[in-house]
Amino acid sequence: MRTQVGIVGAGPAGLMLSHLLHWHGIDSVVLECRSREYVEHRVRAGVLEQGSVDLLCRTGLGERLQREGMRHEGIELRFDGESHRVPLTELTGRAITVYGQQEVVKDLIAARLDAGGQILFDVDDVRLDGLDTDSPVIRFRRDGREEELHCDFVAGCDGFHGVSRGSVPDGVLTTYERTYPFAWLGILAAAPPAVDELIYARTERGFALYSLRSPEISRLYLQVAPDEDIADWPDERIWAELRARLETVPGWSLNEGPILEKGITPMRSFVVEPMQWERLYLAGDAVHIVPPTGAKGMNLALADVALLGDAFAAWYGEGRTDLLANYSRTALRRVWRAQHFSWWMTSMLHRLDGEDAYEAKLQSSTLRYVATSRAYASSLAENYVGLPEV
Amino acid sequence: MRTQVGIVGAGPAGLMLSHLLHWHGIDSVVLECRSREYVEHRVRAGVLEQGSVDLLCRTGLGERLQREGMRHEGIELRFDGESHRVPLTELTGRAITVYGQQEVVKDLIAARLDAGGQILFDVDDVRLDGLDTDSPVIRFRRDGREEELHCDFVAGCDGFHGVSRGSVPDGVLTTYERTYPFAWLGILAAAPPAVDELIYARTERGFALYSLRSPEISRLYLQVAPDEDIADWPDERIWAELRARLETVPGWSLNEGPILEKGITPMRSFVVEPMQWERLYLAGDAVHIVPPTGAKGMNLALADVALLGDAFAAWYGEGRTDLLANYSRTALRRVWRAQHFSWWMTSMLHRLDGEDAYEAKLQSSTLRYVATSRAYASSLAENYVGLPEV
Repeated sequence: MRTQVGIVGAGPAGLMLSHLLHWHGIDSVVLECRSREYVEHRVRAGVLEQGSVDLLCRTGLGERLQREGMRHEGIELRFDGESHRVPLTELTGRAITVYGQQEVVKDLIAARLDAGGQILFDVDDVRLDGLDTDSPVIRFRRDGREEELHCDFVAGCDGFHGVSRGSVPDGVLTTYERTYPFAWLGILAAAPPAVDELIYARTERGFALYSLRSPEISRLYLQVAPDEDIADWPDERIWAELRARLETVPGWSLNEGPILEKGITPMRSFVVEPMQWERLYLAGDAVHIVPPTGAKGMNLALADVALLGDAFAAWYGEGRTDLLANYSRTALRRVWRAQHFSWWMTSMLHRLDGEDAYEAKLQSSTLRYVATSRAYASSLAENYVGLPEV
Repeated sequence: MRTQVGIVGAGPAGLMLSHLLHWHGIDSVVLECRSREYVEHRVRAGVLEQGSVDLLCRTGLGERLQREGMRHEGIELRFDGESHRVPLTELTGRAITVYGQQEVVKDLIAARLDAGGQILFDVDDVRLDGLDTDSPVIRFRRDGREEELHCDFVAGCDGFHGVSRGSVPDGVLTTYERTYPFAWLGILAAAPPAVDELIYARTERGFALYSLRSPEISRLYLQVAPDEDIADWPDERIWAELRARLETVPGWSLNEGPILEKGITPMRSFVVEPMQWERLYLAGDAVHIVPPTGAKGMNLALADVALLGDAFAAWYGEGRTDLLANYSRTALRRVWRAQHFSWWMTSMLHRLDGEDAYEAKLQSSTLRYVATSRAYASSLAENYVGLPEV
């Protein structure tokens, strides 16, 4: 089998890259270890920056997004018994759209298959070879048979646990990382959200986030210990803790309903540099992870492949090498902006075990400053809706 | 001896309070352990916020300040081999004025003495008694004789090492603090500054600050280890290190000259709450210390006593108790804003021993964001020139 760009991973990065390449008349094949069913129902992020929405709409993927996506023009911060709205759109002219990552994935898969694109699900044992030659080969197994995909370039879009990053020789990549002494327990509940906008709450019991996926489905999160066992959290305990952390404003209460899904997500900041080696281009979670507090993960993945799509188009269309050569450097500017923003939001809102009293006061002071300074609120807002240029 | 408000400490806070009380027709006496000569020549801070300048001018202390003070409308940030100006005035409409703390002190002493005010220098063994009664007494020794100052209120303006804070019974005050794993080596040099505005430089060798006191006098600082011995820093080593950290922009060099004074200052963040107990009101360094990176120390001291002056005026003039009752809460809002800003500037600009690579990347990303976002630069600027309201 042969293609121009071999793409490993059918998450938002890999699928969107394939979609963009098709737009530019470049052939690609996407390989995915999981089933179509799995990737279309994997519950992940749900906040699209304005730039991500624009990218999806501009490339013909806006129809369902604009019908079902919920445009939010602000977020709410709760702390010290008070509540403050950050008016994102008033401050930046832009907005966010709540639309689940799995919905983006469904739309992308449908668009690729409609256009005759090739996505090979359920492949095994993916190996990347010849990355430092002009003709790399992706070897894999499908239905028990060994297969080869010959290509000009490989795009590694296979997430943190994927094989792509590990295919780069030792000593080439530098890793930057930070772990956090807490995790998020997230639930998806069949309950109409009691809110029109997301609520980020800092309390002495820890952080909580009230989010949503649709007019009928709520998505809520609790800060928990990193080694927390989900078995210790029966539904009633989860609701009680959510009430304790979120019902801090008189007269307001959350809506409960059957919990459809629950799980614990670790928090990590992680960057690998550079994002390219020879003919391998890395994008999305394969090269950077942010804690979910800033809602940046999927947006960064889409921003990476938007650059990569243009860079491949310039190479195939005009023989230009500069965009591919600059891909890593250009992408990393946005990556580090998002790293800083995500770290800042995380540090400001979570309770740290063993945090000193000075630290807690700094958090309050930072939140109060967001609530009272137009400049500082604007810096939160412009990062949250996504900076057009970084 | 009897007065209305007994003031301990003849630094900017104590002297300014005495000056403001006189303005309101309230009698005070200032006690100071050091000599007039000492306090008038103690080299400390040198940046006045717009609000501090306004306060000094409004109360008749603007004459020399406006003649000799140097108005700055921006600061420069150097990092990663680049240089960026933060245009303070363009972003906020306000400016800072470079005018040494000892000059403020000289002006205040002259004004108090001209107006017949009493400042008792060189007193010893100050003790505060009866703070929880309507008639506190300050006992002290002067010229070997025991003396007593009876008053209605005591203002503790005697700095971090003063006796006032320690006169509050155990268990009343809560302390919040943070130490930093570095100190500043500061010099005063007889060299015309090579700059019109302050330069804050972050380098792999550590932080450096190029500041000035007059058209002939430069004031420069180097980040050093907290246990650094000044004896290990002959003048030539200081200049060499300053060159290495500041001469990072092609074609630019600093001006050298005889070093008039050098010393090492530890870095500390420190707040005590509340800032009042019974008839004792605490202000300035007696209750809060910031690292000097944000140039906030003297400005906070002046802001504290501006509140206190109004509060005493309301009490003596109209029998109002609310301003005195709210003093601590009101002052602490500004104190914590300045604490956060000073911590942020310090964290962004210093090299941390044992800092991880992720941390260093966050610093770069933060600095780059200041350099590229109007909103974020405005948040630096509005804190630096001083927020009118907090």
